[in-house]
Amino acid sequence: MIPIITAFERSPDRGRGLARDMRVRWALEEVGQPYDVRLLSFEAMKEPAHLALHPFGQIPTYQEGDLALFESGAIVLHIAARHGGLLPDDADGRARAIAWMFAALTTIEPPIVEREAAAYLERDKSWYGERLPILEDRIRVRLAELSRRLGEPDWLDGAFSAGDLVMASVLFRLKGSSMLDEFPSLSAYVARGEARPAYKRAFDAQFAVFTAASAG
Amino acid sequence: MIPIITAFERSPDRGRGLARDMRVRWALEEVGQPYDVRLLSFEAMKEPAHLALHPFGQIPTYQEGDLALFESGAIVLHIAARHGGLLPDDADGRARAIAWMFAALTTIEPPIVEREAAAYLERDKSWYGERLPILEDRIRVRLAELSRRLGEPDWLDGAFSAGDLVMASVLFRLKGSSMLDEFPSLSAYVARGEARPAYKRAFDAQFAVFTAASAG
Repeated sequence: MIPIITAFERSPDRGRGLARDMRVRWALEEVGQPYDVRLLSFEAMKEPAHLALHPFGQIPTYQEGDLALFESGAIVLHIAARHGGLLPDDADGRARAIAWMFAALTTIEPPIVEREAAAYLERDKSWYGERLPILEDRIRVRLAELSRRLGEPDWLDGAFSAGDLVMASVLFRLKGSSMLDEFPSLSAYVARGEARPAYKRAFDAQFAVFTAASAG
Repeated sequence: MIPIITAFERSPDRGRGLARDMRVRWALEEVGQPYDVRLLSFEAMKEPAHLALHPFGQIPTYQEGDLALFESGAIVLHIAARHGGLLPDDADGRARAIAWMFAALTTIEPPIVEREAAAYLERDKSWYGERLPILEDRIRVRLAELSRRLGEPDWLDGAFSAGDLVMASVLFRLKGSSMLDEFPSLSAYVARGEARPAYKRAFDAQFAVFTAASAG
């Protein structure tokens, strides 16, 4: 059974690998599970057929037989639970790896997304210049805490896990800014993620969608 | 083995049950697992002893023998995975319930927290009056989508699950506003959550902490 995921027909990030299907592609590549991709226009994402799969009209979704899932975190966890390689074998280690997934998505990503939202929606507002440093400092607080916890090891808790996959995916969003450079251990952590062959295969696959859409 | 959780010594919500230990207490009550609570001052939360348990210096944490967890979502999922009653027996149903946990924490809660943060941090700023309706409309978009998906049933996907526990806990944050009233099916959903005996036991336990702190 080949799972089917959905992705943007034309990703707003222009193929930089920041759309959330990238996390799912990366997880599937890590565990060696082939998959199919169904591309969606922005219009199709808000139509009833897609809303039946994803109540918030977003990508990615994941279909595997009768199972339909949404939320990239839940999909990555499902893939990690069904296949070897993304979660430790011992129950305590699995619980800790899952805690890092939640930390990435609920503690680290929201202030990063908030800064992106401000840059997108409030750039022309009178207050943008005063708010931006406040938003960036909120991110820095989290990066400092994360950097302190990571320390010298390659990954957050032993071997590479779904927790690292999601955390690195969240930190990739900062690559256009200088904030990541302020935390060399986190820059190196992100670079280790990008250097994984599974990441590269996933990146190339989503980039090929962008290239094809641009040529079309 | 009785697990130990941490909670605010003096919760900033004045015992309204909005601190994130409430979700963990509720899950423990649903599965019938007794627990102990260690209360922390704001100062203690930022000290090395607590940062070793929680890299971001927050509550709740969860300790059970050698296992130490942070992130309320991860703790609730751990409790749900170890005990019966909060996740369906079939694998697909479990994956969908977990997807609702992620949806609550990564799609519904961030705009709600952002509005709270603005009310707390930006109330004196010149732009507050113009930004607040924008923030509230972001929440309304999500509530409308969630209300449409919930429809008439009592819970999001069959029987009450950890997904409903986390989603209702997130929606509780809106109780001080009129936004929830605009979506009667969601108001009723929240009321069904509050009516559960396990919720009431958890609420009373955290309220007793507030009462004791106020008397002290």
